[in-house]
Amino acid sequence: MDNRPIGFLDSGVGGLTVARELMRQLPHEEIVYIGDSARAPYGPRPAQQIKEYTWQLVNFLLTKNVKMIVFACNTATAVAWEEVKAKLDIPVLGVILPGASAAIKASKSGRIGVLGTAMTIQMDSYRKKIQALSPAAQVESLACPKFVPLVESNNYQSSLAKKVVYETLRGMAGKVDTVVLGCTHYPLLRPIIQNVMGKDVTLIDSGAECARDISVLLNYFEINHSRTEEPLNHRFYTTASPVAFRLIAENWLGKDIDVEHVEL
Amino acid sequence: MDNRPIGFLDSGVGGLTVARELMRQLPHEEIVYIGDSARAPYGPRPAQQIKEYTWQLVNFLLTKNVKMIVFACNTATAVAWEEVKAKLDIPVLGVILPGASAAIKASKSGRIGVLGTAMTIQMDSYRKKIQALSPAAQVESLACPKFVPLVESNNYQSSLAKKVVYETLRGMAGKVDTVVLGCTHYPLLRPIIQNVMGKDVTLIDSGAECARDISVLLNYFEINHSRTEEPLNHRFYTTASPVAFRLIAENWLGKDIDVEHVEL
Repeated sequence: MDNRPIGFLDSGVGGLTVARELMRQLPHEEIVYIGDSARAPYGPRPAQQIKEYTWQLVNFLLTKNVKMIVFACNTATAVAWEEVKAKLDIPVLGVILPGASAAIKASKSGRIGVLGTAMTIQMDSYRKKIQALSPAAQVESLACPKFVPLVESNNYQSSLAKKVVYETLRGMAGKVDTVVLGCTHYPLLRPIIQNVMGKDVTLIDSGAECARDISVLLNYFEINHSRTEEPLNHRFYTTASPVAFRLIAENWLGKDIDVEHVEL
Repeated sequence: MDNRPIGFLDSGVGGLTVARELMRQLPHEEIVYIGDSARAPYGPRPAQQIKEYTWQLVNFLLTKNVKMIVFACNTATAVAWEEVKAKLDIPVLGVILPGASAAIKASKSGRIGVLGTAMTIQMDSYRKKIQALSPAAQVESLACPKFVPLVESNNYQSSLAKKVVYETLRGMAGKVDTVVLGCTHYPLLRPIIQNVMGKDVTLIDSGAECARDISVLLNYFEINHSRTEEPLNHRFYTTASPVAFRLIAENWLGKDIDVEHVEL
């Protein structure tokens, strides 16, 4: 048993899709979340800068005495996960491997689409992982640089969102039977993405897959939170405006939360 | 990527239920299996002897250059898993935590039955894990010393099996909504157990739950087998008669296998 919280880091609000799934699957675990919305999106930034920012988020979470760190951000996972995982003595999870593994299991045709930020697609992490596990798989990758700004500006249900998603994805529709939502912001656009890709296409939410893995690793490392009746104290931090963060977070999580501003 | 095999150990043939599930879920992984049928069942033996035998099985698997060891045996998990896990530098999985965790998720009433060998029930491992995770759960444990001999003697579909299972379990029927098959031999008796407990009772196969966890840990430690087209070379070893082992194993796995006798 280990009643310390699980730390989540993201470039902004996208990682809330992972946190929501974790709260659903493991309602007795406590969460500390840090979103770097002031510097989002990470996708177009140089790798060295993403690595530096990610370490700042990691070090912040370590001051909160977390027992595990979840990279709830594909860009940070692609660039910094292996380095951070090797240096810390607590478990560090990324979202790419769970997503790649789930896509292979889901795809019948072996033709898999991957959507991500410019950096995630440039690092080619999903294609590498998918083809390492399944060399015959055909992977079509697509950078969607306009998606994260739509979500961070709380416009993910707008008609602008529908237009942007349609224009970005129409070239991929009909070519793949499985699509990896390779950025934790994208599940907020899920209904629109499903509509453009067609109902028979399986969308893989890397964050939700990651939440399932968290459960297994809590067991393996024997660091589950005990199921006491005491209320949990989830904490959310943002480097930008707590008001804007809270607006999206409460809508997405369906509950009231406290959000605190923090300077890194 | 890591193309070394995964090692499975069991007191006899029961761990084949875990191996079968692994082959189904991860058909690209190679298996080395050692069953100590000559000294099965482990359940009634003293803890110190079980620990000694388990280390012999572990050391045998290490000579086969395995990348991970799965304790496909609840008794060995209850007695020796923590010690072995702490001493080896490859991942070591047991079946008790995955089973306990799955039972908590499955149970609606919080009343959970646990079936196991004399030693597993005496160690009280399932109750401890279940109540650590979920203090309000009510756990009814039952030692079923006659079950393993039925399976090891290939009598698990006989009318004798039906009689023994009925007489053992009738006191538990109606009292729990979830039953942990806390011995990897018991899934071979599953249809009979389900019949006695009633169709609305969820049976938790600890071994199958464990196979799901193996997949996550292969990802986490980045030691998946690549999906080449080369045929896999699963290997099975027993301390008793290879003929008797093969009879049960081929029936259970639904494929031809090679079995070799080994002295520990």
